[in-house]
Formats: sequence, C-alpha cells, structure tokens
Amino acid sequence: MTETLIPEADLQTLAARALARGGMRPEEAALAARVLVLADMFGVRTHGIGRVPQYLERVRLGGIDAAAEVQVARMAPGLSMVDGRNGIGPLVGMHALRAAMESAREVGIGAAFARGSNHFGPVLPYAFLAAEEGFASLIASNATTTIAPWGGKDTRVGNNPLGIGMPNPGGDPIILDIALSVAARAKIRRLVQEGRPMPEGWATDAEGRPTTDPAKGLEGFLMPVGGHKGYGLAVMVDLLAGMLSGAAYLTRVKAWDRNPEAAQDLGHVFVLIDTTRLHAAEWMRERMTDFGAILRGTPPADPARPVMAPGDREMALHARARREGVTVAAGDLEAVRDLAGPDL
Amino acid sequence: MTETLIPEADLQTLAARALARGGMRPEEAALAARVLVLADMFGVRTHGIGRVPQYLERVRLGGIDAAAEVQVARMAPGLSMVDGRNGIGPLVGMHALRAAMESAREVGIGAAFARGSNHFGPVLPYAFLAAEEGFASLIASNATTTIAPWGGKDTRVGNNPLGIGMPNPGGDPIILDIALSVAARAKIRRLVQEGRPMPEGWATDAEGRPTTDPAKGLEGFLMPVGGHKGYGLAVMVDLLAGMLSGAAYLTRVKAWDRNPEAAQDLGHVFVLIDTTRLHAAEWMRERMTDFGAILRGTPPADPARPVMAPGDREMALHARARREGVTVAAGDLEAVRDLAGPDL
Repeated sequence: MTETLIPEADLQTLAARALARGGMRPEEAALAARVLVLADMFGVRTHGIGRVPQYLERVRLGGIDAAAEVQVARMAPGLSMVDGRNGIGPLVGMHALRAAMESAREVGIGAAFARGSNHFGPVLPYAFLAAEEGFASLIASNATTTIAPWGGKDTRVGNNPLGIGMPNPGGDPIILDIALSVAARAKIRRLVQEGRPMPEGWATDAEGRPTTDPAKGLEGFLMPVGGHKGYGLAVMVDLLAGMLSGAAYLTRVKAWDRNPEAAQDLGHVFVLIDTTRLHAAEWMRERMTDFGAILRGTPPADPARPVMAPGDREMALHARARREGVTVAAGDLEAVRDLAGPDL
Repeated sequence: MTETLIPEADLQTLAARALARGGMRPEEAALAARVLVLADMFGVRTHGIGRVPQYLERVRLGGIDAAAEVQVARMAPGLSMVDGRNGIGPLVGMHALRAAMESAREVGIGAAFARGSNHFGPVLPYAFLAAEEGFASLIASNATTTIAPWGGKDTRVGNNPLGIGMPNPGGDPIILDIALSVAARAKIRRLVQEGRPMPEGWATDAEGRPTTDPAKGLEGFLMPVGGHKGYGLAVMVDLLAGMLSGAAYLTRVKAWDRNPEAAQDLGHVFVLIDTTRLHAAEWMRERMTDFGAILRGTPPADPARPVMAPGDREMALHARARREGVTVAAGDLEAVRDLAGPDL
C-alpha cells in the first residue's frame, strides 16, 4: 500500500470539504473531520479519513442523514441526552463531548448519553481533546454484534470500544483506547492466508467451542479478553452507551455492512471529570511524571522493547504527524480528494 | 472446609460487634460490616466476614486506625474528596459511596475519590447498594502490585478491582465485578499441587517470558486479561482511584502482607449516575428485561450451562442467602464470634 504525507491543516480542509460536499453544514463537517484527522495522526488509520467515502456512501443510500440537526437536552446540571438524529457519527460524538464538557465545567463532572448515532471513529481523539482542557474521561460506544456471550454460540454483543484518559498539564496525557476482543478478525484472516495455526483463546468455532484452526475461527465468534471478564465489560458498555442513552443495543443494533441503508441507532457515553477542581496543574504534572516514570522504567522482558504507558505509541505518532505531516494511504487520500471536488 | 448457615441479621450483628470491639464506633462498625456481610451473601467469601480478623490484626499492629474519623470534602457540586485517614477500608468505601450518591442526587452524576484507605472489600456490595437506589455505578480501587506492565519483568501494577452496575427497578440489577488478571495466584498454586500444566497466558516466569509451568508462573507475574488491554485498564484504574484521589499508586502502595504495620494509603473511585433523571422506572424495567433476555436466551455451547448476564450467579446466591441464611466457613464464623465477645 502506497503511503503519502500531507500537512495536518491540508488534510483537515480536504476532509471537511468532502463531508460538506456530501451534505453536512460546513462548520459541522469541520468538527467531524477533526475526529478523523486526529485518528490518522494517532496512527489509527482504520478509523481515519479513509472512512469518509464509507460514511458518504451510506448518506447516498439513505442510511445516514448528513444534514441531521443533532439535539442536546440537559436533564440535570451534570447530565445530557444527545439525539444524533441519525447524523454522521463523529459529529454526534463531538456534540456529546461538548455537552459533557459544559456540565463538567459547571459542576465538576458531566455525562452525555448519545443515541441515534453511527460509527463515531476511535475514542482516542475525543479523550485527547478532553485531556487538552484538563478533563479526565471515560468514553465508550456500542457496536454491531461480533462477540458471543460467554458460554454461548451466537453473536449478541458488540466488540465495543472503551477509552479512559487522564490529562497531564504540559505533557502527554495517558490514554487507553481498546476494543474488547482478544484479536481482530483481520488478524485471523491473515493466519488463514498464511496457513498458520491460531493461538488459543482468539476465537471459537461456530458451535462456541475453543479452536486453534483460524478457518473455523472465522466461521465462529471473536473471544472477549479474559473470557467472562471481557464479555462482562462489553455488556456493561452496551448498558451505559446503548441502553441508558435510549439507543439500540445488543442484537437490536443494525449491521451497517449488511443494511447500509438502515439507521443503526448506535449509542455512546461520555463521562468527563474536571481535574482542575481537584488539583493544581503543578500537582498533576508532578504525579503524572512520576506515574509514567514508574511504568516506563520497568525492566523490559526484551531489552529492545522498552515498556510503555497506554497511549505512548499513539502520542509519539501524533507529535510526528504534527511536525512532519500525516501519513495516510495514497488511495484513501485520492478518494477524499475526489469527494472534496475543486477548491472553490 | 466445614460450612455453616447463619441468618443475615445475626451475621451483621456479630460482624459489627467484632469491629466495634476492635475499636470502631458502633454505627461505623455496622456500616463496614454491611459490606462484608453482603460479600458473603454474594458468595464472594474471600472478601467477606473472614476479613474481620485480618483487619483487626492490622489494627492491633498499628497498620490501620479503627477509630479514624473519615473526612469528606465537597470540591464541586459533583465532586468529593474523601480522606480515609487510614481507617477500615469498607468504612471509607461507604463514606465515598454516600458522598457520590449525594452529588448524583443533586446534579445527576457524582464522583468521590478516596485516599488514605485500606482493602475495601469487593465492589459488588457498593454497586448493589447504589443500584437499589436507582444509581448506575462505576467503582474501582487500586491494590498492592502483582502484575508486570506489558512487556516488563517487575510487578508494578495492582490487580485492580473494577465494577460497573446498572439498576433494574423491581428486578435484579446487572453488575460486573472483576479484577484484571486472567487467573488468581491461588488457581496457579493448585496446578502446582496437582502437578498439572498451566494454560497459556495465565502468568509469565520471573524474566517476563510466557510459560505453561505453574511453578515458574508463581515465581513470575500474573498476566492481565488481553495482554496490553488488561494492563492498560489496570493502569487507568490506578490513575483514577490512586493518583487522582491523592492516594499512593503503583509501587508506592505498601503491601499489607509484608508491611502489616504500615499504612497502605490505597485509593478508590466511585462514579454514580442517577438514572431516574434520565428515564422513568417503567422504561428502565422494560429495557433491562429485554436486554437480559437477549443475553440469557443465547444458545449455550454446553446445553447444561445456560448463558448468564454479569452478576446473575451472585444475585441468585444473594436471594438464597436472604431466604435461607448466609453460608460462611465455620472457622471464619468462630473467629468473628471470638472477636465479638459476649452479647452485652
């Protein structure tokens, strides 16, 4: 795959223009583009500007409403409900982020629950934007089902993304952004192609039995991290992000790839804590520095691979992207350029 | 191990009396006993009234202050800082739970960060008490280090407990209460005794390398669920519960078994959401019923083992304990009786 480098500002302009040309209001297109460009800067390219054509194809098919007017209702000083009205996911996410920030600024902590949404990108960009303003965050979304409940043989839970972030005034925040399966399906597909066995614990066969045959694994179900523990986490994320927000949940979420023309009604949850109400910036910086040093100073099992704190790799890629430009797949960039049309 | 049945109220009275005789104020002893009795009712016997002698032994050695006056400071309408002043853990936990509840009642969501604490029992009792009053919860604590950072060969992260709960008006809440290692050390010890190999992925040897030899695993480190994912979750829990609360964190936490006379300065975090501000009870009940039915209706891999929702087993044990009495180890009960002294 050919890669290409493009300055952050240029990528932002292009992605925003493509989304606006696809039917979004320009200001909102810029908000949504911000999430996708940050994803590329963090190296999470599967959730970056390469998603623009996919989002706009669903708009074309009537599965997403690019012109949706997202509604935000404050239910209590610390709580908001966001109705995405089937808008572009990252736009709904940014509205929910803002609503939770407003509450947290006011009363110290705030939550926003979003329904009527779509794929909102990775959690990392939201947690990063929150950390830049001093907020610790817990952000999650539900998703199309790909995991079988522990001990079951039918996919009824999503591989739900979950992120937690902690700000570090003047330094890099520590941010975790994970999904809850042991391995992604793409990794299993590669093993089939290479004719190699699959490690224990990645997937079950179609009957829900453990297997190390990757072909059988592809017919079966992704296994959650830690068995019943990851299953439980995926369930609790869906209860918070899906059920409590009033969105669809579990098998009631529509699969966008099989029903691209149907509204998914995904749900998200954003919980933000204003750390500036608890500690001075200097206090936070000292502790975050000490905390990070304890982790990164762990003797490594392999001397060539130093121990990292969550998000270290992504923060380093982000710094490089800001300095040298964002690395994207040439094909993805071309597709976005086509959708963006001429600069008027 | 001989087991015995005792009515909930009698066990509560006995445990509270033992704690009061050990130096706690009677009302506070009752609060702490409530957590431990609930743990036994949920079948989490390792964290039940069997802990009373251990707590009081540490009090005797000067490692815990049974008469500590826990301080609660409201930092913002939604945020409290709790200083446990090295009191009995479940007492500090109950103060933090109350503080977070008060905030959540007022502004819809509330968080309490506790420092200067000790082992606070399992998360389940707190999440259950929260759910009974309509609160969704996210509760966690840091702990003595037993896990190596991913790719490292030194224990620098705790096997931190994390719980998430969702209320179900008129029915059983769904509650997840997990620690972040794949397996407990006790399980590995049993494999050594039985001369059986250890499954892949439970523990590393002392050099941080994968092993299936349980004896080497005992010399090494517990592996977190999902490798870097569980490591990351344990880190983020410590940032929220330990660092942000102003408690000790990572290797700065003292091991109670090696330093029983030293204050551990553990930290906890309680985040509660008042679901009654978002939805009517009838709405919640309908959705929780539907959500649970989708999970429990999954075709099981083994027909003899139906699929469960998180906490189903513990809620069933709780119902039975309420009906028939609490099952405890006869030896534990005897020890608590001895500590409780005669009923004056």
